[in-house]
Amino acid sequence: MSFEFTDLVAALDIGGTKIAGALVDDTGRIHVKAQRPTPAQEDADVVMGAVEEVLAELRQSPLWARARAVGIGSAGPVDASAGTVSPVNVLGWRGFPLVARVGAVVDGLPVRLVGDGVAMTAAEHWQGAARGFDNALCLVVSTGVGGGLVLNGQLHPGPTGNAGHIGHISVELDGDLCPCGSRGCVERIASGPNIARRAAEQGWRPGPDGDTTAAGVAAAAEAGDPVAVASFERAAQALAAGIAATATLVEVEIAVIGGGVAGAGPVLFDPLHRALGDYAKLSFVRGLRVVPARMGTEAGLVGAAGAVLLGAS
Amino acid sequence: MSFEFTDLVAALDIGGTKIAGALVDDTGRIHVKAQRPTPAQEDADVVMGAVEEVLAELRQSPLWARARAVGIGSAGPVDASAGTVSPVNVLGWRGFPLVARVGAVVDGLPVRLVGDGVAMTAAEHWQGAARGFDNALCLVVSTGVGGGLVLNGQLHPGPTGNAGHIGHISVELDGDLCPCGSRGCVERIASGPNIARRAAEQGWRPGPDGDTTAAGVAAAAEAGDPVAVASFERAAQALAAGIAATATLVEVEIAVIGGGVAGAGPVLFDPLHRALGDYAKLSFVRGLRVVPARMGTEAGLVGAAGAVLLGAS
Repeated sequence: MSFEFTDLVAALDIGGTKIAGALVDDTGRIHVKAQRPTPAQEDADVVMGAVEEVLAELRQSPLWARARAVGIGSAGPVDASAGTVSPVNVLGWRGFPLVARVGAVVDGLPVRLVGDGVAMTAAEHWQGAARGFDNALCLVVSTGVGGGLVLNGQLHPGPTGNAGHIGHISVELDGDLCPCGSRGCVERIASGPNIARRAAEQGWRPGPDGDTTAAGVAAAAEAGDPVAVASFERAAQALAAGIAATATLVEVEIAVIGGGVAGAGPVLFDPLHRALGDYAKLSFVRGLRVVPARMGTEAGLVGAAGAVLLGAS
Repeated sequence: MSFEFTDLVAALDIGGTKIAGALVDDTGRIHVKAQRPTPAQEDADVVMGAVEEVLAELRQSPLWARARAVGIGSAGPVDASAGTVSPVNVLGWRGFPLVARVGAVVDGLPVRLVGDGVAMTAAEHWQGAARGFDNALCLVVSTGVGGGLVLNGQLHPGPTGNAGHIGHISVELDGDLCPCGSRGCVERIASGPNIARRAAEQGWRPGPDGDTTAAGVAAAAEAGDPVAVASFERAAQALAAGIAATATLVEVEIAVIGGGVAGAGPVLFDPLHRALGDYAKLSFVRGLRVVPARMGTEAGLVGAAGAVLLGAS
């Protein structure tokens, strides 16, 4: 697509917790933003209603007239070829025709869909920590665990836009059942809700602020609570095994980790670097670098736009 | 390289059990073959001596004059960019300069190195079960467990020639230590020696033929021995988790399994198909096909030649 500097992309970032939208320019700058909580337990049309509210808010901006395309990064699995999404954590959407439904309310703009992991990867490769690397894995560790790949210098979404789906590889053959139906998935061990669940099961209780989420566990771990520390260590171990597996399978030079849980900082990254030493043993993966994402919480939006502008899908 | 129909490739297939060599034509036909056991516990020069014996035998053939290049598929890890190999199961070779050492005894022919998993993949993609598939994983389940990838219609050896190294991804975070230094690797659970070890540890004893290898366990499993069956089921579970992980990470449509252990047939493939149903749950991996290799025990040799002729490295 020919894109002028005054043109914008309408980006949607659809996750298990929130649905965000923005108008993004060709430098990745966000001009207008809207957001709703994801009604993840509700039926398909209620979830779509939240998407439509976000789009309606964007359309109220005078900048909407400069939007030339819509880029969607959605929690997966997606089917980019069919235009449908089936996010593991959004129960009402199974094979949901998101591209067609969004297309119906955006004045005929073209709509491009990628998985949220691919979107985040587009953002980090375009402007963030994976810039300049020809072979990279980017992860989002949040309500779920997603990811995306850059191979041979190009985004590698795979035929259906789901490649890099590291959250649902099993690193524990006999591990706990995952909502996806498999066992011992990286997400089942390392996502924010699972970090919080494991800590609570082991006896951790929130502080005076009552924060029972992974952020609360992170604060406790920083203060030295051993149960909180252990829960992050276990998450780090699963992430390390998954990252090492990916590097062993496709040879990536760098892994970039974003998402809310990565915001815990050293509480996550210190044990992660140690665990990588345990699992990334072969000569060609020993040099693997693991770094925090640079694009922050808006990586999903910037990447949804970036996937349109970089032409990947 | 320009290749005429009378030209041949000298192929070397270097594994933990045997070192094979052949002269291969551009249809994949093997004309002359030589083989030695791998002195895997000996020092570097003793192992190289076995390679040199294989090459000397090939050079005694009048067809050697038609050889135009040498293709090596070696147990990994390899470093295709440096021309060195460090096979996990060949203790004396760590960063061993195999390309230079072979180059010194082949009359100046060019030498190309790939990992044995990439070589087997080249063979199956060139002429075997992965022919016509743009995204494929090929595995060798034998003394070790290797693999290789075809992505977007091309061999994907990765920067150092090791991509597809599925034997050393961890599918059991807290599993047994692997000789590679990691834990719970697919190879540690599913290789032939580990199938035999696990059966023996659980009380299985060989029949009158005294065969204590995985082939002996396979025969017992066919006859209904529950311990033998269970050992193959565990191997199948690990392979299924690894194959599902690969499909989840890069979106392959087919997994092709060769190597001696795959020769067990339904004893391996029946529980493997069942276990895939347990681990390959996301929509985009549910259609994954798993089939036996077609290239037989000579896939390594044909693939080492194929990697030269297909131009991959």
